[in-house]
Amino acid sequence: MKIGLLGCGTVGGGVLDISRSLPGLEVKYVLVRRDRPELGALAVTDVNAILADPEVDTVVEVLGGLSPSFEYVSAAMKAGKNVVTANKHLVAHHYNDLVALARANGVAFRCTPAVGGGIPWLVNLERAARVNPVKAFWGIMNGTTNFILDAMHKNGADFSEVLAEAQKLGYAEADPSADIDGLDIQRKCVISANVSFGMLLSEADVPVLGIRNVKAADIAAAEAHGRVCRILGTGRKTAGGVAAYVEPAFVAAGSLEAAVDKNFNMISFDTEYTGRESFYGQGAGRYPTAYNAVEDCLDIMGGVRAFYTGSFDPAVPDPAGDAHPYYIRSSVPCPLPAETWGEGALTRPLSVKAAHDWAAGAKEADPGLFMAGVI
Amino acid sequence: MKIGLLGCGTVGGGVLDISRSLPGLEVKYVLVRRDRPELGALAVTDVNAILADPEVDTVVEVLGGLSPSFEYVSAAMKAGKNVVTANKHLVAHHYNDLVALARANGVAFRCTPAVGGGIPWLVNLERAARVNPVKAFWGIMNGTTNFILDAMHKNGADFSEVLAEAQKLGYAEADPSADIDGLDIQRKCVISANVSFGMLLSEADVPVLGIRNVKAADIAAAEAHGRVCRILGTGRKTAGGVAAYVEPAFVAAGSLEAAVDKNFNMISFDTEYTGRESFYGQGAGRYPTAYNAVEDCLDIMGGVRAFYTGSFDPAVPDPAGDAHPYYIRSSVPCPLPAETWGEGALTRPLSVKAAHDWAAGAKEADPGLFMAGVI
Repeated sequence: MKIGLLGCGTVGGGVLDISRSLPGLEVKYVLVRRDRPELGALAVTDVNAILADPEVDTVVEVLGGLSPSFEYVSAAMKAGKNVVTANKHLVAHHYNDLVALARANGVAFRCTPAVGGGIPWLVNLERAARVNPVKAFWGIMNGTTNFILDAMHKNGADFSEVLAEAQKLGYAEADPSADIDGLDIQRKCVISANVSFGMLLSEADVPVLGIRNVKAADIAAAEAHGRVCRILGTGRKTAGGVAAYVEPAFVAAGSLEAAVDKNFNMISFDTEYTGRESFYGQGAGRYPTAYNAVEDCLDIMGGVRAFYTGSFDPAVPDPAGDAHPYYIRSSVPCPLPAETWGEGALTRPLSVKAAHDWAAGAKEADPGLFMAGVI
Repeated sequence: MKIGLLGCGTVGGGVLDISRSLPGLEVKYVLVRRDRPELGALAVTDVNAILADPEVDTVVEVLGGLSPSFEYVSAAMKAGKNVVTANKHLVAHHYNDLVALARANGVAFRCTPAVGGGIPWLVNLERAARVNPVKAFWGIMNGTTNFILDAMHKNGADFSEVLAEAQKLGYAEADPSADIDGLDIQRKCVISANVSFGMLLSEADVPVLGIRNVKAADIAAAEAHGRVCRILGTGRKTAGGVAAYVEPAFVAAGSLEAAVDKNFNMISFDTEYTGRESFYGQGAGRYPTAYNAVEDCLDIMGGVRAFYTGSFDPAVPDPAGDAHPYYIRSSVPCPLPAETWGEGALTRPLSVKAAHDWAAGAKEADPGLFMAGVI
């Protein structure tokens, strides 16, 4: 297999390193934006040099972002090249276009590193779904926010100190919004839901609550009630469609999710035959992410041409179809209050739709509100 | 794919059920020992009816035990049929013969349900090992013993009561020896080590300590030191070879293993690129186990012919190459005592070889001794 690698940052460098040790895999070109003398003759600055070379059968995209990734990946598929990408934003945002383009051009389209980094999530989801329907998936899908929440539990520290530490350690970006506001998880949720349920949900179908406002008092309220705060992406088949959403969750101390510490991830599915199965590992990072990109290349070398699902039904979002109690800390009176939990309140069970709709309204009056599902 | 199913007990019945829902999979025969009118024309009592039918391309063996499973599976391979088996005893005991026979006859040999039941352990181990060497694996590989240990922690009950409850619930056999003495885990450890490290270890190379003698006092000693008792199978590449062993382990409260409750399993590997990855689910049971047998059939339908590893080096067991402290409760003075832990003692780090050799000798004088690695 001769590969055109689009991008050579953290993950791209890892792909280059790993591919060198594997017979049969050769990175023939690396698309770069600026001079990279250490890449020697591999480096090209014009994507057309890659697209025009018939020897290149597979393009691995690790540029990130929507543009020019989308244009490059589309052009690669039209040029008959298989595509592997680690870019969750690209796949979530252009899911319908990209799966259609891959099918129309008879090329493979794989994105295992886009959800779960080094965790073999999408390939195992695909394997389960070919034998029986997926009932639900859920999990810790973002290492940055798990690092922050875990540190807040362990040190009693407040959000801003821990975020600063995470930035110093390289676990959080200078602009951490995509992580702490839950958008990164939302993208992974869209892809996981579409593969799990064979649908075409988009980002707008997946409501999101982030952890930007979490305070030490919220962590203390969780602990006082035998719980640990995590942020989860969830997708569940309902009577009416699919409830997919992202929100902080107070999970039981002693549960598997509570034991996922530092920047680790764990994603689970539930099917009729298997019951719950969970997959734990590094959800990001140079070598874990590059590893799954290389695994995708090996699968393609081995003949894999299908996407993870062959079903692309219209989206039927149903966030009203899933319900649980919420912990809410806000100056705005919360709906259906049941108990006082520290500085906040526990509600009676609310549908995800009702809870997220209420939050959208309440945030106007109280931009500092924090809420979490209690599951 | 036309399947000859050898055996129709718990798992075999599950294979029959699941295969009926999948296009392309057809169970053409079911080998039974006694009349099974509900199977109609599928039932045969002579294995040769299956082996002689050229339409049958794959044999799924779920008889259990070594004989006649070994004879039947060998004959099937010689007749050019692919083999899928859920029988860990068969695979561990005849590993070398079976992988050689499969290669000699150009047939597929897959046994995903043999290790981890419904957990996709061997397929994910294979996937990781094709990209980078496996450094170690370890995990909770037996649901019966995890159920017992978890219940002892939760109820403070003693071993014999909990075992009786497990038997009543169908989680433990009438003769529970293979589970509680660790032999079931030993077999899974042999297969996992051979796939992980490309070696030909056999059962005799994997020393075992079971949980037959565990008492409420041992569980209390673990808890008093912030630990939870589990029984683990482990394999680790050492400077000298491979240290593979089975023993009770006091793991940290708060660790993932401590959060694995009831009869669930969790198995992990560590590789350079991925770091730790863990796989959690039902390690036994009708549908989970049958599910992985059916998945193996689908992989074979998709063209998989290789075993999980292509490397079959001579075994180099090195239980002297791994070391940790042990908790020991025995009337025989323990080696290198460091602290008193309840009715037992904590040793300084001992090699696995030294610890298991000491236990073999001490059991003569004290058949009730219990010991566990403290990791």
